[in-house]
Amino acid sequence: MPLNPADSAFAERLAAALPFDTVRPPEPRHLEEPRGRYFAKSGLLALPRTAGEVATILRAANAARVGVVPYGGGTGLVGGQVMTTGPAPVILSLERMRAIRALYTEENVLIAEAGCILSDIQAAASDANRLFPLSLAAEGTARIGGTLATNAGGVNVLRYGNARELCLGLEAVLPTGEIWHGLKRLRKDNTGYDLRGLLIGAEGTLGVITAAALKLYPRPAEEGTALMVVDGPRAALDLLARARGRLGEGVSAFELIHRQGLEFLRETLPDVRLPFDDLPEWMVLVEVGLAQGLNAPAALEALFEEAAEAGLVTDGLIAQTEAQRAAFWSVREHIPEANRRIGSVSSHDISLPLGAVPEFIEKGGEAIAALGAFRINCFGHLGDGNLHYNVFPMPGKSRADHETQRDAIKRAVHDLVAEFDGSVSAEHGIGRLKTGDLARYGDPAKLMAMRAIKQALDPAGIMNPGAVLDG
Amino acid sequence: MPLNPADSAFAERLAAALPFDTVRPPEPRHLEEPRGRYFAKSGLLALPRTAGEVATILRAANAARVGVVPYGGGTGLVGGQVMTTGPAPVILSLERMRAIRALYTEENVLIAEAGCILSDIQAAASDANRLFPLSLAAEGTARIGGTLATNAGGVNVLRYGNARELCLGLEAVLPTGEIWHGLKRLRKDNTGYDLRGLLIGAEGTLGVITAAALKLYPRPAEEGTALMVVDGPRAALDLLARARGRLGEGVSAFELIHRQGLEFLRETLPDVRLPFDDLPEWMVLVEVGLAQGLNAPAALEALFEEAAEAGLVTDGLIAQTEAQRAAFWSVREHIPEANRRIGSVSSHDISLPLGAVPEFIEKGGEAIAALGAFRINCFGHLGDGNLHYNVFPMPGKSRADHETQRDAIKRAVHDLVAEFDGSVSAEHGIGRLKTGDLARYGDPAKLMAMRAIKQALDPAGIMNPGAVLDG
Repeated sequence: MPLNPADSAFAERLAAALPFDTVRPPEPRHLEEPRGRYFAKSGLLALPRTAGEVATILRAANAARVGVVPYGGGTGLVGGQVMTTGPAPVILSLERMRAIRALYTEENVLIAEAGCILSDIQAAASDANRLFPLSLAAEGTARIGGTLATNAGGVNVLRYGNARELCLGLEAVLPTGEIWHGLKRLRKDNTGYDLRGLLIGAEGTLGVITAAALKLYPRPAEEGTALMVVDGPRAALDLLARARGRLGEGVSAFELIHRQGLEFLRETLPDVRLPFDDLPEWMVLVEVGLAQGLNAPAALEALFEEAAEAGLVTDGLIAQTEAQRAAFWSVREHIPEANRRIGSVSSHDISLPLGAVPEFIEKGGEAIAALGAFRINCFGHLGDGNLHYNVFPMPGKSRADHETQRDAIKRAVHDLVAEFDGSVSAEHGIGRLKTGDLARYGDPAKLMAMRAIKQALDPAGIMNPGAVLDG
Repeated sequence: MPLNPADSAFAERLAAALPFDTVRPPEPRHLEEPRGRYFAKSGLLALPRTAGEVATILRAANAARVGVVPYGGGTGLVGGQVMTTGPAPVILSLERMRAIRALYTEENVLIAEAGCILSDIQAAASDANRLFPLSLAAEGTARIGGTLATNAGGVNVLRYGNARELCLGLEAVLPTGEIWHGLKRLRKDNTGYDLRGLLIGAEGTLGVITAAALKLYPRPAEEGTALMVVDGPRAALDLLARARGRLGEGVSAFELIHRQGLEFLRETLPDVRLPFDDLPEWMVLVEVGLAQGLNAPAALEALFEEAAEAGLVTDGLIAQTEAQRAAFWSVREHIPEANRRIGSVSSHDISLPLGAVPEFIEKGGEAIAALGAFRINCFGHLGDGNLHYNVFPMPGKSRADHETQRDAIKRAVHDLVAEFDGSVSAEHGIGRLKTGDLARYGDPAKLMAMRAIKQALDPAGIMNPGAVLDG
């Protein structure tokens, strides 16, 4: 059955059921996304203050068969937050629910409402001498509800896991308006199906997360950062294995950087200081956070020496000060901005079995070359097998010159990913950008199960229509 | 619609669709469970060799509306593996599917079929100089399929997580007979709903796990174990916080032991050497696995000194040899057997928010005392807030003397757990033992969602009837 628009009659009824000023026309920021690739024509903005108000909104939307698009910080990269077609939905923004409800230092647990900005949660944890390890480029804007709904990743997944692994419990409103009071602070709880894990990563299609119990960690006693020039991706993997053999979970991040990214930085962001005068073809950024009794620079030095002896690394810099650590990270963190300024023809957030990464990079280059002359910036979270594999025009050409080739490039990259048993969406999710990829590359039995679950929990099909499962 | 029995006509049809000797009468071991509390009257045993054969069985069972009970090692403690009432089901044992299909050392991934014995997987990992950290009392008999289906815990959850966190991907057969080929070896994969997490912990009610891609870890470079006498549960928690502040994830296990358990050991298993002549009221077993460059006994010594200065610990033993480490663990690991020999009136696998543990132990003692004279052995995985809270008769009395009080004791303990926002099943699951507890203490919205998911994925209701959701 088709959905109905959130028209003025619906808006009036909804407004009457909620406190003053909960329902409004949307602002422009609610109708587009940061890269300007998705636009909504219209919608009705709802700004609830409590889970109870969210429940009121979902019950009304269910009764009227009106679509609901949950909205967090709006930083998603796959269009999950913007409904581009169909009747005007309710845009349900959690921005007013931004209390940190409680912090249990002894338990290493923090309870945050869905509208909390990620960096505010990090800061609250830090004030209690704890670490909330979820860290990603958009952390100053992204809200925890959306971060969980998309099972966001970032730079510390290697050590601490994705958003799903960092959440102990949820408060959420199911599509038919029931509130699930599941803010458990437990490390072990085997009482029934994993509804928490199911809502996390469902991208708002199975309900609205209103609050979460989040895992904190002790801050590592000793932290350190190094850049090491490696003899290619295979050597980088070998270095990773040696690092983990020596330091175990002490390896917090292991980021691969290709020369192309450094050249883009030099071209577009000359203020970012590059660490080597001769730009190396491949290097890795290694971050460690160690136990008391170890010295981080010394541990990195010992690792470097072992790797140099094995012929894996040819040059390296170990940060001796906090300023140097920040400078090394600045290189890594500015690469996405440099990419944006160059303008990719097609970008891909993929993951691969770790052992397949070197061969994928080799074959990927051949597949792209077969389609024309392009520059490839392949970088990312190597420790997780997660590459941001972005294809750019040659100097003098622009993104617009290659419009007609984008689909073929995307297809070539994703076909190769599928061949290696990888994922066409490692950390960004499906949203509206990749529904076709999910249908093409997804396992049929899993897709069948997903559709059955969607139908069971959201029989009217109101939750984030068109996202993840398109029709 | 009621289920039909797996009668001889069904058995003949099923046998004809499968290779010779796949269908048989069950052996006695398939019809009971280790503690002798659940018995099945009858059933038809199926011993498939492949996921395809499992699919054939489920399709036939669906068509005939015959119940299916997935069967692993049979070591579950809540009766999930034994259907006690209703028409005779197919007992689907995975015992012939015990290949380790692949081991990717570089990727820290091992792919095992569901029938692999847990200790065989640990040994295969160890042979590759890796660690598969899932470790529990029944590991010599438990099979990985059942271990995953029940989201088993054990002694290393504090560091490495439950079974769910140790699994990257699954091959499974859905209730209607479709095979989900989901054996991904990826650390990040945001392509749709978390079906993996949903099947894990569903106790065979949503499908049959046939193989799993499991996470391995590097073996810690330095390992050590200590026993420390603590000034009560509050001091134990403070000690845990200090240990994690110093050593982070290096704390692998943190087990609480009460004098009652030591007294039971002395009484029933006199060969187990007790570490202190004067049995302390409370002690903890601390296990650490550290990075290269640290010395485990020295790190434990430094922790002990800090804790002694703070008045948290009064005595301690730090293992200097492997034999001593084994002896310390032997104390902890024999407590369940000592409990069995004494014979509990009622035992409880519960978890609590970490900070609530001391008050729970205090109030729990009062609540039990109000019901009569009993001995309480409260021990377990304190690092996870997971207590095994077991109530025993006084000397001279027996389990049978208290039959009529069991329900009141269980109710008192579980009510108190609910009051503290804990879980009435931390690691054992719901099975058939705790369906009433789930209905009583479970969140109504979550239960509604669970029923909807069960109905959506298993419309004929054939999968493990009566387990988790009773009717």
